[in-house]
Amino acid sequence: MEPEYRKDVEENESLIEGRNAVREAFRAGQTVDRLYVQDGLRDGPVLDLIRRAKKADAVVDYVSKERLDQMSATGHHQGVIAHAAAYEYAQVEDILKKAQDKGESPFVFVLDEIADPHNLGAIIRTANLCGAHGVIIPKRRSVGLTATVARASAGAISYTPVARVNNLAQTIEELKKQGLWFVCADMDGEIMYDLNLTGPVGVVIGSEGTGVGRLVKEKCDMVASIPMKGDIDSLNASVAAGILAYEIVRQRRIAHR
Amino acid sequence: MEPEYRKDVEENESLIEGRNAVREAFRAGQTVDRLYVQDGLRDGPVLDLIRRAKKADAVVDYVSKERLDQMSATGHHQGVIAHAAAYEYAQVEDILKKAQDKGESPFVFVLDEIADPHNLGAIIRTANLCGAHGVIIPKRRSVGLTATVARASAGAISYTPVARVNNLAQTIEELKKQGLWFVCADMDGEIMYDLNLTGPVGVVIGSEGTGVGRLVKEKCDMVASIPMKGDIDSLNASVAAGILAYEIVRQRRIAHR
Repeated sequence: MEPEYRKDVEENESLIEGRNAVREAFRAGQTVDRLYVQDGLRDGPVLDLIRRAKKADAVVDYVSKERLDQMSATGHHQGVIAHAAAYEYAQVEDILKKAQDKGESPFVFVLDEIADPHNLGAIIRTANLCGAHGVIIPKRRSVGLTATVARASAGAISYTPVARVNNLAQTIEELKKQGLWFVCADMDGEIMYDLNLTGPVGVVIGSEGTGVGRLVKEKCDMVASIPMKGDIDSLNASVAAGILAYEIVRQRRIAHR
Repeated sequence: MEPEYRKDVEENESLIEGRNAVREAFRAGQTVDRLYVQDGLRDGPVLDLIRRAKKADAVVDYVSKERLDQMSATGHHQGVIAHAAAYEYAQVEDILKKAQDKGESPFVFVLDEIADPHNLGAIIRTANLCGAHGVIIPKRRSVGLTATVARASAGAISYTPVARVNNLAQTIEELKKQGLWFVCADMDGEIMYDLNLTGPVGVVIGSEGTGVGRLVKEKCDMVASIPMKGDIDSLNASVAAGILAYEIVRQRRIAHR
């Protein structure tokens, strides 16, 4: 994931380098998104860090020494660099509870592999303003809650819970058992204005490049398309998310009249 | 406009430095957005470049030698740096003609002081896909058609005409005489779902920071608000533009049934 990696480097304020510093971060309960470990290192202290990472639900990535050297701001990474989340992740249950506390039908965003931090931030911002109860992202192949995402969210990240899950398709399956149904945005769907988008709903938005993944799409109850009559292929992912979310807002308003 | 200036520096592929190079650019008919001239320089060759700039409808900015030195990639600016547009600007008439050729009611975007090139690019992309006939931006206090805007537009910039005008309020006034009416997006407006947004229309979107300017807003026939129920202030400008534009698309579809 080169683009995400470059972002890590840009945001080196959130990189924690060296064995002691990383261990202290875990001890202090700081949220670590990802632990980069130099390929082949298997000594006791490193294995301890890997154990702590797994316990803390962080992704562990084995990378070459060259890549660690490149990422390192200090030059003293000792084979480990952790990437701290700028914000805390929530649990999926927190999102559902938020809906329940407000006495509203759950309305969640599910983001499949959004790599651009500006798009993720803008979508969290939209989720906050359209009245959604939270955002679910996958642990791998997605940008995390970095400082750039926080800035692009214009503060929404402090209000709207963002949960990170291992397997989006599985999470969708579980939420369907709890009464949610899922609509994914894709060009081959039915025009969104012709669909009934009311009720407890999850909106699934795919990555900028490839759209919603097949496994995730198969779990969705409906595929909604935004009508397009232009010369190019697709809307910006955060714009598409906003348009579909507000069609849901419109239909909910009518349903509640 | 510091943010825009920094973008100029980032995109120094589009900076033309030195008197001969700038004169050649004008002679060749290259579109120059802006000519930066060192404060106090009034010799013949510089006055000639200023004349050419005004004739070519470029903005002339008088700046300190220090700022030119900072912008300069070559170190040999000789008191003049021109910023070439990555793409050609259209005329407002081209936009109306596009609508006429398609036998459609005009649908234009008017962008008041959008400074962020990613937002401008994303809005041009949305304009293309929602079936708008063009985008109008002001000459001053707006990012121009830079390489970053072109990239963010995902190619839409090659299809959707973008016109640059001296005075947005005046352009709106002229277009109203030609039968267009204007709706601006602002929080104090009527909920957009309750407005009739069909017919020949201009959608006015304000800057990320301050919204639509007072003079421009006064020219608008309607103020539309996007319903917001969150904890933060406002949507990303390109997301807001997309949401309002697609409410227009929805209403036009119904009107044409």
